[in-house]
Amino acid sequence: MHAYRTHNCAQLAKANVGETVRLSGWVHRKRDHGGVLFVDLRDHYGLTQIVADEDSPALEVLDGLKLESVVTIDGEVKARAEGTVNPNLPTGEIEVFARSVTVQSRADELPLPVAGEQEYPEDIRLKYRFVDLRRETMHRNIMLRSQVITSIRRRMTAQGFTEFQTPILGASSPEGARDYLVPSRLHPGRFYALPQAPQMFKQLLMVAGFDRYFQIAPCFRDEDLRADRSPEFYQLDFEMSFVTQEDVFQAIEPVLAGVFEEFANGKSVTPAGEFPRIPYAEAILKYGTDKPDLRNPLVISDVTDHFQTSGFGLFEKIVGSGGRVRVVPAPGTHEKSRKFFDDMNDWARREGFAGLGYVTRKGGEFGGPIAKNHGTEGMEKLYAELGLGENDGLFFAAGKERDAAKLAGAARTRVAEELGLIEQGCFKFCWIVDFPMFEYDEEQKKIDFSHNPFSMPQGEMEALENEDPLTIMAWQYDIVCNGYELSSGAIRNHRPDIMYKAFEIAGYSKEDVDANFSGMIEAFKLGAPPHGGSAPGIDRIVMLLADEPNIREVIAFPLNQRAQDLMMGAPSVVSPRQLRDVHIRAVEAPKPQRGEDTRVDRAGDA
Amino acid sequence: MHAYRTHNCAQLAKANVGETVRLSGWVHRKRDHGGVLFVDLRDHYGLTQIVADEDSPALEVLDGLKLESVVTIDGEVKARAEGTVNPNLPTGEIEVFARSVTVQSRADELPLPVAGEQEYPEDIRLKYRFVDLRRETMHRNIMLRSQVITSIRRRMTAQGFTEFQTPILGASSPEGARDYLVPSRLHPGRFYALPQAPQMFKQLLMVAGFDRYFQIAPCFRDEDLRADRSPEFYQLDFEMSFVTQEDVFQAIEPVLAGVFEEFANGKSVTPAGEFPRIPYAEAILKYGTDKPDLRNPLVISDVTDHFQTSGFGLFEKIVGSGGRVRVVPAPGTHEKSRKFFDDMNDWARREGFAGLGYVTRKGGEFGGPIAKNHGTEGMEKLYAELGLGENDGLFFAAGKERDAAKLAGAARTRVAEELGLIEQGCFKFCWIVDFPMFEYDEEQKKIDFSHNPFSMPQGEMEALENEDPLTIMAWQYDIVCNGYELSSGAIRNHRPDIMYKAFEIAGYSKEDVDANFSGMIEAFKLGAPPHGGSAPGIDRIVMLLADEPNIREVIAFPLNQRAQDLMMGAPSVVSPRQLRDVHIRAVEAPKPQRGEDTRVDRAGDA
Repeated sequence: MHAYRTHNCAQLAKANVGETVRLSGWVHRKRDHGGVLFVDLRDHYGLTQIVADEDSPALEVLDGLKLESVVTIDGEVKARAEGTVNPNLPTGEIEVFARSVTVQSRADELPLPVAGEQEYPEDIRLKYRFVDLRRETMHRNIMLRSQVITSIRRRMTAQGFTEFQTPILGASSPEGARDYLVPSRLHPGRFYALPQAPQMFKQLLMVAGFDRYFQIAPCFRDEDLRADRSPEFYQLDFEMSFVTQEDVFQAIEPVLAGVFEEFANGKSVTPAGEFPRIPYAEAILKYGTDKPDLRNPLVISDVTDHFQTSGFGLFEKIVGSGGRVRVVPAPGTHEKSRKFFDDMNDWARREGFAGLGYVTRKGGEFGGPIAKNHGTEGMEKLYAELGLGENDGLFFAAGKERDAAKLAGAARTRVAEELGLIEQGCFKFCWIVDFPMFEYDEEQKKIDFSHNPFSMPQGEMEALENEDPLTIMAWQYDIVCNGYELSSGAIRNHRPDIMYKAFEIAGYSKEDVDANFSGMIEAFKLGAPPHGGSAPGIDRIVMLLADEPNIREVIAFPLNQRAQDLMMGAPSVVSPRQLRDVHIRAVEAPKPQRGEDTRVDRAGDA
Repeated sequence: MHAYRTHNCAQLAKANVGETVRLSGWVHRKRDHGGVLFVDLRDHYGLTQIVADEDSPALEVLDGLKLESVVTIDGEVKARAEGTVNPNLPTGEIEVFARSVTVQSRADELPLPVAGEQEYPEDIRLKYRFVDLRRETMHRNIMLRSQVITSIRRRMTAQGFTEFQTPILGASSPEGARDYLVPSRLHPGRFYALPQAPQMFKQLLMVAGFDRYFQIAPCFRDEDLRADRSPEFYQLDFEMSFVTQEDVFQAIEPVLAGVFEEFANGKSVTPAGEFPRIPYAEAILKYGTDKPDLRNPLVISDVTDHFQTSGFGLFEKIVGSGGRVRVVPAPGTHEKSRKFFDDMNDWARREGFAGLGYVTRKGGEFGGPIAKNHGTEGMEKLYAELGLGENDGLFFAAGKERDAAKLAGAARTRVAEELGLIEQGCFKFCWIVDFPMFEYDEEQKKIDFSHNPFSMPQGEMEALENEDPLTIMAWQYDIVCNGYELSSGAIRNHRPDIMYKAFEIAGYSKEDVDANFSGMIEAFKLGAPPHGGSAPGIDRIVMLLADEPNIREVIAFPLNQRAQDLMMGAPSVVSPRQLRDVHIRAVEAPKPQRGEDTRVDRAGDA
């Protein structure tokens, strides 16, 4: 018989009744029924009920053990009595009568409970993560994460992608977020940086002739943390050669739709090949954001034309000075009190906007100051155009175009939430496309890049030379799911001539470009294929699938919000010799910290 | 028609003759046959021959392009004329007559050639790695690496392992090799360290109840570099709960044997389930090393007993003072000159040994000073015992046991190499087992740990309490292939009581243990399963399969031997602000370096 187990804790069923078995696991729960002890024995796979009565030498041992001790049980499988069968448990038809028990590990008092799903302070959970991870939800989340990544890898490989590792000890970049630095021992005064993303390396892999690259890539940004940000995170980094934007969509939609369908747990998923493509300008107009949540059925409209002349002087004034009026419908709000509408206005003010106007309607009768001033005829014309009914309210966001769009977008979300309109049980994907290549920088009074200077402009050199820069779009695209941006991507500008021209339009000389981006441009001068890609965030995908609002719930050993590992005690004070070795000095003495004693030390496989 | 290609460069065959196609790729080779230009167009997948004659507008364009320019060719597939078919090329039966060509990227003069396999200085190759990677062997090596890793992942998953990511921003450890440090911005004076291995995390995953963990884990050691060492390397890190050493072997042998068989390219591989298990002591005796190359048929013997009394005074003296005499057979060396034997002795001296004795034999007649002094009768007895024949020579390594073993081991390799005895075309695996738990430290005159203090001693507490420590073995094991150690592994000591006892034997108090290893011990006090694992080196596996002696040949973007990325310019000088942000100061000003201008900058997917 195996030293530890003949079966795992999810394996035994009615067919095993009568067998002598050996199980190992953690003492999950104990129930003492007067001389009979019931123990739920837990391992990675499941739970099995162990029974020890007064005839068994196991009783006393199990009785004396604290929860979470690890034991090996020898015993006999018996059918549970009618009425005690647990249909929710794979092993719920049997129990194991313990003949003997070996204690593999005696647990002390626990810092947090494992059985049950009690809320517990995060710092205790993270300090004792190895206990926290035993809890059902965490165990499931971490397993889900692994399964999602395995599924993504399989699907990417099936799409003809090859996974390569790119360096983690890289070069610091003055662009983008803050780098994590690593001082060099062999080169005093010089530093490596951890990659914010393998962007350059994946493009160089294309230049090197590898056709379709992907990587579940660790990335690092030393930024201030939020619920959905971790200093260390993973992205599905991918890049393809000889492709158009359409090819990128066709390659990645089956991967994303496939992995979401696989783990959606009954939720519906936008099918591959059917991800809506929403031009950036349309997204800003209809959803007030370039990250629209398509589960929200409300659509913003521009009604500026209706207020060129209006009894409502404020709108007339705004429109007269070039502003915009946008509206968010509030369908079926005839039974809502005045307070509902006023609260929305208060909310908008709290969010820093000038205010959110509204019109109420009940049985065809309009209410509120806008309607009153604008007049019933005008309102009816507006409602007819918007296709709204006689019990639908309407919210108004007016101001400079950008402000009106932003407020309308926020109001669209708020209204839908308040009215319970957000469709549940679905993952709705879309692409945002046709980002403007350039924009007019009001402060600097000049044209500048709008998003990514390294994307290929639509129309390429032809467009740069002949079109109004502010009308040129980039081959750039975001993937959005349920209002979360999963990634930005682009067809890259692989042509030095087009790159110089694009930078020239944004006011940079060839010398500027060469000074800052010579490396990449030099690489492109040695034979570069057209290429493009993207990099959906793995952690965010898992958060969506696990329905967790906090990234730390889907990472086995996350840093906390102060970027500390409370379990291992990182970051920590290191020896003066370690600093000397890498030719640096700390400017400030470290402050003592809570949890200084929790450092777990390392030793192991060479 | 697709913008860039209807087929890739390995796809077209006789069945496509007559089709109009579009191909994209790099201009690999050009041959001008007087008015007809032949171009080998290369992409990731293969080569296709393009033909342009004077009727084609493509001729002039192609003629004017430098090698490695990227082009898109529109043309017609034609069958090659008899006699010009290339049976070694998948597309060797056809060629594409170019009707037009679009230049996607015009290449400048190349820093190193792509076509052909010329040797080139490594610093040029690494600075222009994106060109170097286009070369056939490098392209194949990097693809092999990816395929090997994908295969390992698939096999590990099939064995019931789950892949988890462990943190890269971790805690520094005073043990082991030198850490790469990362200064913390939020915690002045404190540092993260990059993991030398995820040892602690994988053990904590077991404590957390995840049954079978693996990870293709990036590891970092700031050590001086060698051909088979990189600062950043990958290991197949794995760990299992509720297992014996035998379970570990049964889980991992199919993975290793399987992946080697898959990529061995006709070489034979030790089958799973048949990896020999060689006790450490036996390995040292028979092979003079714990990393035996079993392709070498020679086996060392201990012949000390034969020299208790001998006419050969030197050996008698060595044996008399407790030393050992070990021998390495040199079969069929009757035709070898005296010089062959003397050269071996010279080699041993150059290697720092006292010298390598020998006996020659030709047609049964012994030669050399050892034989002369020891006498024919004694030599014949020795030969009979060793099963050696009348044309076999014999080398002698004598001295203190450790020295004799080491010299014999080195001589075994040298002799087999000189005689061409190393079996080619095979991968021979073995396990080295039964490592001693303790050893006597001659310098400190005390018992100390022999290898890994954290391995479980065989016999556990029972053995520690009742046996001579120097006879206790550990549940520790190395995987060796063709003389390379792929990894060390162990069944871990998960019992605080046994750990304290083992450290006590090695002279450390409970306080010492708690001061240094409290974190792990505290974790083990909250319910730890018996567990064990190992961590075979991925880079080394790929090196063996690719038959490359240098680790940098199997890494896409390696650091050079001075730990520099010559392409991206890492490590680099960073801005004073970056250093201020993380509260450090450089002690020494950086020296200017060659290649300072090669920095490739980053920008891309958010």
